[in-house]
Amino acid sequence: MAQKPSIPKGTRDFNPEQVAKRNYIFNTIRGAFETFGFQPIETPSFENSETLMGKYGDEGDRLIFKILNSGDYLAKIDEQAYANRDSLKLTSNISEKALRYDLTVPFARYVVQHQNEIEFPFKRYQIQPVWRADRPQKGRFREFYQCDADVVGSKSLWQEVEFIQLYDTVFSTLKLEGVTIKINNRKILSGIAEVIGASDKLIDFTVALDKLDKIGEEKVKEEMLSKGISLEGISKLQPLFTLSGSFESQIESLKGILSSSEEGKKGIEELAFINEAISELGLKTANLQLDVTLARGLNYYTGAIFEVAAPKTVQMGSIGGGGRYDDLTGIFGMNNVSGVGISFGLDRIYLVLEELGLFPETVTKNVEVLFINFGDKEALFCLKAIKELRSVGINTELYPDTDKMKKQMNHANKRNIPFVVLVGEEEVGSNMYTLKNMVSGEQLKVSLKELVNQIK
Amino acid sequence: MAQKPSIPKGTRDFNPEQVAKRNYIFNTIRGAFETFGFQPIETPSFENSETLMGKYGDEGDRLIFKILNSGDYLAKIDEQAYANRDSLKLTSNISEKALRYDLTVPFARYVVQHQNEIEFPFKRYQIQPVWRADRPQKGRFREFYQCDADVVGSKSLWQEVEFIQLYDTVFSTLKLEGVTIKINNRKILSGIAEVIGASDKLIDFTVALDKLDKIGEEKVKEEMLSKGISLEGISKLQPLFTLSGSFESQIESLKGILSSSEEGKKGIEELAFINEAISELGLKTANLQLDVTLARGLNYYTGAIFEVAAPKTVQMGSIGGGGRYDDLTGIFGMNNVSGVGISFGLDRIYLVLEELGLFPETVTKNVEVLFINFGDKEALFCLKAIKELRSVGINTELYPDTDKMKKQMNHANKRNIPFVVLVGEEEVGSNMYTLKNMVSGEQLKVSLKELVNQIK
Repeated sequence: MAQKPSIPKGTRDFNPEQVAKRNYIFNTIRGAFETFGFQPIETPSFENSETLMGKYGDEGDRLIFKILNSGDYLAKIDEQAYANRDSLKLTSNISEKALRYDLTVPFARYVVQHQNEIEFPFKRYQIQPVWRADRPQKGRFREFYQCDADVVGSKSLWQEVEFIQLYDTVFSTLKLEGVTIKINNRKILSGIAEVIGASDKLIDFTVALDKLDKIGEEKVKEEMLSKGISLEGISKLQPLFTLSGSFESQIESLKGILSSSEEGKKGIEELAFINEAISELGLKTANLQLDVTLARGLNYYTGAIFEVAAPKTVQMGSIGGGGRYDDLTGIFGMNNVSGVGISFGLDRIYLVLEELGLFPETVTKNVEVLFINFGDKEALFCLKAIKELRSVGINTELYPDTDKMKKQMNHANKRNIPFVVLVGEEEVGSNMYTLKNMVSGEQLKVSLKELVNQIK
Repeated sequence: MAQKPSIPKGTRDFNPEQVAKRNYIFNTIRGAFETFGFQPIETPSFENSETLMGKYGDEGDRLIFKILNSGDYLAKIDEQAYANRDSLKLTSNISEKALRYDLTVPFARYVVQHQNEIEFPFKRYQIQPVWRADRPQKGRFREFYQCDADVVGSKSLWQEVEFIQLYDTVFSTLKLEGVTIKINNRKILSGIAEVIGASDKLIDFTVALDKLDKIGEEKVKEEMLSKGISLEGISKLQPLFTLSGSFESQIESLKGILSSSEEGKKGIEELAFINEAISELGLKTANLQLDVTLARGLNYYTGAIFEVAAPKTVQMGSIGGGGRYDDLTGIFGMNNVSGVGISFGLDRIYLVLEELGLFPETVTKNVEVLFINFGDKEALFCLKAIKELRSVGINTELYPDTDKMKKQMNHANKRNIPFVVLVGEEEVGSNMYTLKNMVSGEQLKVSLKELVNQIK
């Protein structure tokens, strides 16, 4: 093979530094999940196709990676589809497994399949990769990790309160201060649609409203009009466009707008409950903000909707999101199980921490000591010390070959190894070690015991 | 969907306890890898098909999971193959990506692709899942983790010495004492084949010899005969079948058998070097054993061959293996890079630890405290204490609903939560918490500060 090898587009290799930085984020999230009482599960990378297909809409179905059946996969096929070269139809004949597209549907499948072993309410977290055949672009990959925490089996609003605390805890621990946790409620959106006489156009309405930030008030109104929402209805929306101020004052305005909608009032009540609890409990560094334009995944969420925005100093899309869904497991025949969950966007959090210089310097667990190799007798002597150092948790290496000293020292320099130990004939004879600090250049002759203490 | 959902055969869901136990093993291995100076990399779950195909033999090619191209995958196909329904030929037309089959080939690809960023010798470790379309059976899965550590860029035998220490460190840390690290050398096997005049039948010869443990001496001889190895040659093997005793005495016998083979003598020299170093350095709990019948992956290894057997009290295949390969990156056009590496078999190690009861009790990080929920006012009061407990790292939960007290207490019992906190009107009034030890039944009324201290 003459050509230099490559990897599929939209995928990535991670070098040691990147792995360490990613693990720093994973471990922080995992630690917070566990103190909040969530427990880990893992599901297979691929599921039976029928578990995934049809759960994410047509676009989702298209973006699911399908796995070709093993063996003679053409043995049993739809003759008509084969003759017509109907790729779409043939797919279910030649592929019966598919790569996980998100962690939510596999979680729903897990809950239904293991319902007799699970003690509800069930708080689980899951940190695993997912795959999407999306067009790769900056910050969008075909393989990426999701970090999800969900509770199923309770409708209590205390969970929404705890998820806000959880977001605050994770981002505060990461020293990413000043994130904004936006919250909305599907019932607010339904209530507004009801009030303006567009209940049958809830999706069109919210999709347009969701764009307010990006395209501005006039364009949003134009889009609503084009979707068949009446001018009269749109005029009733006017107070929404100018909604601002504190959480409490927005709640007051919404009470006026939604006074005629029972569902809308329920939504206001839920939001007020959550806001009062959070005000009482306090957040470490995050801000909670009501955003009535927030509508992510609306055909999915039934109550609270969350989205987290990075601090305003950074240009970045949302770094987390979630919400309440009232019948997730219904797709697998288990009804009336309410769930609520949130997700962390690893790749974007990584980019934000990098941009703001928030990764601790100690995050990459580098090798701390390199022993220079002057020959077999010396190397064996070194390995006895190396054994001691490793047993107290110090990352230690022996340079494997008796290359020229300059080459070995260069190796330590290039890898930023802070200590080098030199053992020649003299040291072996006197049972001592020459320890060199590669930063200060300082050099000491020490016993094994002193060596361990110095490096510690 | 009426049917209860399921997962593809050969794959597994892991519940919280299983995830915790697996992570205990992963973390132990990872910790040892790092103290030995290995650094983590990660590669994508799928590679371009040409990176993987042809690297594992015909059988391997068959067992690689292929990913169906997205979109109209029938648009560009080999007409002849399509007309002939030639599954095999059509595969490369409709699939250009495949799931990782092991970690070694992706590592070789990584080294070649990133050679300019890498400082050699390069010590990397990689802990990631791999996928094989093998027939599932007890202990064999279609998705499983590999844990590999390799060094590339040096031929030094000190690395073989360190890998033996690494195996010893990992298994000793896991309290799995008394594993046997078997070692052989391809040069020994080549030497023997040379001596018995079967150099051209090296593979047949070693495949038969490898079965000595399972089928016994007579059957091994029969198989060799059937493969065209001469009676005279086989008779020269006699000393091999009775080879026993210490490492040193086996080395002495081999010197006699292999006196006429230069390659064989080189193999003896290498084994003796490694054995002397290990004798001098000592092992914590493992035994090093010379096993001249060991031949795993022979067409791959060029020097040392390793295999680890569980303690004799457990019936289990090998729990680790590895060896030296002298031209791994050659398949991607980068020649003369020697490598040596070892692998840990997670699933089998898990089964062994389970069977011997070696998982520490503290391995599952359970929830430590459940707060009973008597109403919104009490819950809010509880959440203030919960915030404190979590901030000092205690895994804490609020029962989300105001269910009957008995149901809430049962929930704590079923989940083996050791502490329950009860806060009613009285406690809120007096700013106190009633702490119940679920094991002893003991109940205390304490302040927040005492609560934190008691549970700590």
